Amino acid sequence: MIEQTPKVAARKSIFDLLFGRPLSSDEDASEQVGPAAGIGIFGLDALSSAAYGPEAALTLLIPLGIAGISYIVPISASIIVLMGIVYFSYRQTITAYPGGGGSYTVAGENLGVYAGLLAGAALMIDYVLTVAVGISAGVGALVSALPQLQSHTLALCLGILFLLTLVNLRGVRETGFIFLIPTYLFVFSIAVVISIGLFKVFTHGGHPIPIIAPAKLPLPVEAISIWLFLKVFASGCTAMTGVEAVSNGVQAFREPKTKSAHGTLTTIIAILAALLSGIAYLVRAYGIGATAPGLPGYQSVLSQLTLAVVGKNIFYWITIGSILLVLSLSANTAFADFPRLCRAIAEKGYLPYPLTLRGRRLVFSYGVYALALLSGLLLIIFKGVTDRLIPLYAVGAFLAFTLSQAGMVMHWKRKGGRGASGSMFINGLGAAATGITVCVVIAAKFTEGAWITVLLIPTLIYLMYRVRKHYGKISNVTACTIPVDLRKIEPPLVVLPIQRWSRVAENALRFAYTISDDIWALHIVNDGEKGDEGKDELMKVWSQYIEQPAKRAGLKLPELVVMKSPYRLVLTPILDYVMELGRRYPDRQVAVLIPELVERWWWYYLLHNQRATALKLMLYLKGNRRIVVINVPWYLSS
Amino acid sequence: MIEQTPKVAARKSIFDLLFGRPLSSDEDASEQVGPAAGIGIFGLDALSSAAYGPEAALTLLIPLGIAGISYIVPISASIIVLMGIVYFSYRQTITAYPGGGGSYTVAGENLGVYAGLLAGAALMIDYVLTVAVGISAGVGALVSALPQLQSHTLALCLGILFLLTLVNLRGVRETGFIFLIPTYLFVFSIAVVISIGLFKVFTHGGHPIPIIAPAKLPLPVEAISIWLFLKVFASGCTAMTGVEAVSNGVQAFREPKTKSAHGTLTTIIAILAALLSGIAYLVRAYGIGATAPGLPGYQSVLSQLTLAVVGKNIFYWITIGSILLVLSLSANTAFADFPRLCRAIAEKGYLPYPLTLRGRRLVFSYGVYALALLSGLLLIIFKGVTDRLIPLYAVGAFLAFTLSQAGMVMHWKRKGGRGASGSMFINGLGAAATGITVCVVIAAKFTEGAWITVLLIPTLIYLMYRVRKHYGKISNVTACTIPVDLRKIEPPLVVLPIQRWSRVAENALRFAYTISDDIWALHIVNDGEKGDEGKDELMKVWSQYIEQPAKRAGLKLPELVVMKSPYRLVLTPILDYVMELGRRYPDRQVAVLIPELVERWWWYYLLHNQRATALKLMLYLKGNRRIVVINVPWYLSS
Repeated sequence: MIEQTPKVAARKSIFDLLFGRPLSSDEDASEQVGPAAGIGIFGLDALSSAAYGPEAALTLLIPLGIAGISYIVPISASIIVLMGIVYFSYRQTITAYPGGGGSYTVAGENLGVYAGLLAGAALMIDYVLTVAVGISAGVGALVSALPQLQSHTLALCLGILFLLTLVNLRGVRETGFIFLIPTYLFVFSIAVVISIGLFKVFTHGGHPIPIIAPAKLPLPVEAISIWLFLKVFASGCTAMTGVEAVSNGVQAFREPKTKSAHGTLTTIIAILAALLSGIAYLVRAYGIGATAPGLPGYQSVLSQLTLAVVGKNIFYWITIGSILLVLSLSANTAFADFPRLCRAIAEKGYLPYPLTLRGRRLVFSYGVYALALLSGLLLIIFKGVTDRLIPLYAVGAFLAFTLSQAGMVMHWKRKGGRGASGSMFINGLGAAATGITVCVVIAAKFTEGAWITVLLIPTLIYLMYRVRKHYGKISNVTACTIPVDLRKIEPPLVVLPIQRWSRVAENALRFAYTISDDIWALHIVNDGEKGDEGKDELMKVWSQYIEQPAKRAGLKLPELVVMKSPYRLVLTPILDYVMELGRRYPDRQVAVLIPELVERWWWYYLLHNQRATALKLMLYLKGNRRIVVINVPWYLSS
Repeated sequence: MIEQTPKVAARKSIFDLLFGRPLSSDEDASEQVGPAAGIGIFGLDALSSAAYGPEAALTLLIPLGIAGISYIVPISASIIVLMGIVYFSYRQTITAYPGGGGSYTVAGENLGVYAGLLAGAALMIDYVLTVAVGISAGVGALVSALPQLQSHTLALCLGILFLLTLVNLRGVRETGFIFLIPTYLFVFSIAVVISIGLFKVFTHGGHPIPIIAPAKLPLPVEAISIWLFLKVFASGCTAMTGVEAVSNGVQAFREPKTKSAHGTLTTIIAILAALLSGIAYLVRAYGIGATAPGLPGYQSVLSQLTLAVVGKNIFYWITIGSILLVLSLSANTAFADFPRLCRAIAEKGYLPYPLTLRGRRLVFSYGVYALALLSGLLLIIFKGVTDRLIPLYAVGAFLAFTLSQAGMVMHWKRKGGRGASGSMFINGLGAAATGITVCVVIAAKFTEGAWITVLLIPTLIYLMYRVRKHYGKISNVTACTIPVDLRKIEPPLVVLPIQRWSRVAENALRFAYTISDDIWALHIVNDGEKGDEGKDELMKVWSQYIEQPAKRAGLKLPELVVMKSPYRLVLTPILDYVMELGRRYPDRQVAVLIPELVERWWWYYLLHNQRATALKLMLYLKGNRRIVVINVPWYLSS
């Protein structure tokens, strides 16, 4: 046995510039992040929810007129309470499962394989949608500000997707640093607006005067009902999507991993809760309602709020800009989590194995590619306008929440001990609350598109089941627990297609003799075609150039098989002959030698027919275990 | 030597339905056509010119107002005279070159290789443009009649292109029959209009009363000038494009080929001349001028003429319909000629060799594919609206005419004998007239796009020159006029990458022993990755499963090379080792054995990494003549 370690790290290449130098497997630690960068990576999705969660709730309250606004405070309060429960649950998940994997792992280990796959499938769909919707929301806002870009919507979306993919392929650490600035800018701007707003509310005894008045609220046309309240609650809950991200990515954190992850999660939840409650309080104080989306005069709630509090100055534009930026970059959280989730599922054999491989920057590159490809397809299909997809993606997130909480209930039940029953209660409450939310979201949005998710999830689970089954089959069939069978080792029969005598053919024939003495040279004659002369040429030289040297060297003569092909087919007769030879000599292997001229540049291949390639493909498809294909290259340049 | 002819003709397949049953090479005669079908195949392009030639001339006469119309008769007369000269020239070409090839052959054999290539390149561009412009003109007319189809313009264009391609792949004979009906319908309708028109002119003493009055002519804003006259003449000459088609396709005709081809050419020219003179005469008699294209109130000259003569009844719609049909099908002539032209050029080595191969229906299929691909690209780039390409395509046609006539002058000069000087004079006159036309077209349309053709033609010739040179190089370098060298025949060194002990690996190792005793098993260990266990597993079984059986069989033990790969690269270390082995044993060949699991369906390949394929590609690109790649398949299904 020889042991070798390559001396050179890796070759320098153009990829170094694009993706950064390759990282060796033991540089893993350097790619890990602390809580500060963690917020940029795993918090963007959750924090950006503050920009659309309250708006989603208020939009459903429009029919209630001015009376509706007062409901936003209790609804936000309930959402924050639910978020608190979910927070404690994920905190415990992180402690219990420091290996990462989040809902998939928790549900899988506590509720059974299929519950895990259900959570996994739901999250996968959720992430793909997050990327498509996030990017298209950002571009949509940009386009409404600069209408001359309208016709480039799709190109802009794909461009951002490409950049996100590139950044994420460069590794976790770099991604964290790049996304730190927009995240903090966003949090800072909203926090300033809220602070000034609160100050004004207090100095004006609860009745502040808006600098720019918000849109007038319509007259009420409806009264509050339980169903409406539930729908508002469910819509507002979109403010919670993205909260599971940290628990999936524990492995990306620096040691002590659990503590870093806890810190990140706590910070994200605290900021999000502060933003949500501040927004809810100010919206009521200023009397700001949602405007009907898609209609003239539409203005987002955060835009109205900022105008009311600080007026239309440079700070307003910074705030709006940071919202747009964070919305379109919220896709990044999916890029951080999706590959890790896929890896966790692939390690159990339910997704293709390459998803477990780490690329040059220690990122699970295939997961990144898969996410980019799937969300890119969505963007292309919907031409960059994915509004219709928004109803689809709360389902996945809340299904995952529910399963994760339910899983934690079982976890505590099994584990028992001090505090277990308290934890069980919290998780049980969370499971019930998020479970109800899932039902409400599905019921409320079913016809708007939630049915697609309801169909997609089982399809995905079925595919995962099939993948696992196929791997199982391969593993069974190829398992080899016996020694190699080395009896009756005989040289193979060699088949060599040869059209004219050239150095390419000479090289191939010479190689044929190095592996066997039993050689069949197949020569196809296209009857009636101009190619006829080839036959004569080869036949003329056959004895002189091939048979005589073989005789002199004391080798067995190759058998020349001349085949007529009235239908001008070349490959079919060769394939047929190979198969027949295989039948005639059932104990021998057949090696088909394919002489190939290797050109220097690909475009030269346009000058040749691709018979060698086609023959290889045909032999591969129609062949069997005893047929082996040998490529004998002849390099034109050397 | 064994001689074989396959018993079965060819396997039945889905392609039979689509393309018809395969034709054997000796069924060539059954695919040949007589003059009647010949007009449908080779005449469509020329005859459809009657629909746009007079219109093109009249459009340039608009500034002359009512006075302009009177010039159409002398101009049409000169065009018909020129056409007569070209006709005699091509008649003689057919007699002199019954092998076909038209302008390319005539110019090449009489004026030198590059004159031939010039004609060839010009015609190739002309044909590609004919297809794109013809189809898009037809679809354009259809869309202006049914505006609801507007948004499907490109799809309609590509659909027609697809159908034309399919029909042409079915063979010459079928194509001829399919296109017979629209051709005759077109000729018949126009002939009827002209006859009724002439009758009315005579019965009204030269001043017929139009049933529906043509558009009022504008007041003159310009007087006639030599330059305008030349431009009108040059524009009107587009009525002659497509006339060369028959001379390229002589081989497609039934015996006696020359006579059949002559008959077809004479019929086409006679009909075209009759249509052109009839249209010119009636246009003047009825006072019909062109309307500005692209502006409101536009109506084609033929439409105005038909309305004036027969009114707006069913016959009007039949006529207009047949014009549209013939315009969009005129592309078919290019499909008949382009592959033959390419074949003629490829036979001399100036275009890729596969263009000389005949497909299942004895058609030069690669030429058909190339034409479909190139014109399809044009259609896609211009989104199905190719008006801007029209100025480009008279250049190619007239350049080919000129070269062909000039070639014939040289032909007669060399041949001499009775009547040679007369023929020389006719061809010389034709060369001069068409030569002047080329100059006028280029000068008049240079900025409108003719410059593209002027640039493209030399580019194409340069490419052809490079192709020829590359073939020459291959032929020189691979030429082998020595017997095969069979001294020092030694078995190759075998390199076998192996990650875990499986039946796939067992199968490959067994094959390795059938060709050589010198085996290196390469095992890559991804240091620090989870894959680590693989190493242990293989090492554990190595002695028991591999070394002991080899010892028992009295074979040399394979060398196990364990390589650490800190950067998780698998292929690079293998490639490096193979290259090093090659350097260490400079006299031996290295055979890299690639064990491969063959799955039943392609989608299963998504479940595996494509390392085998990638390794083959890397070895192919970076390898050398001494490195041979052997695929050892292991079929999962069998």
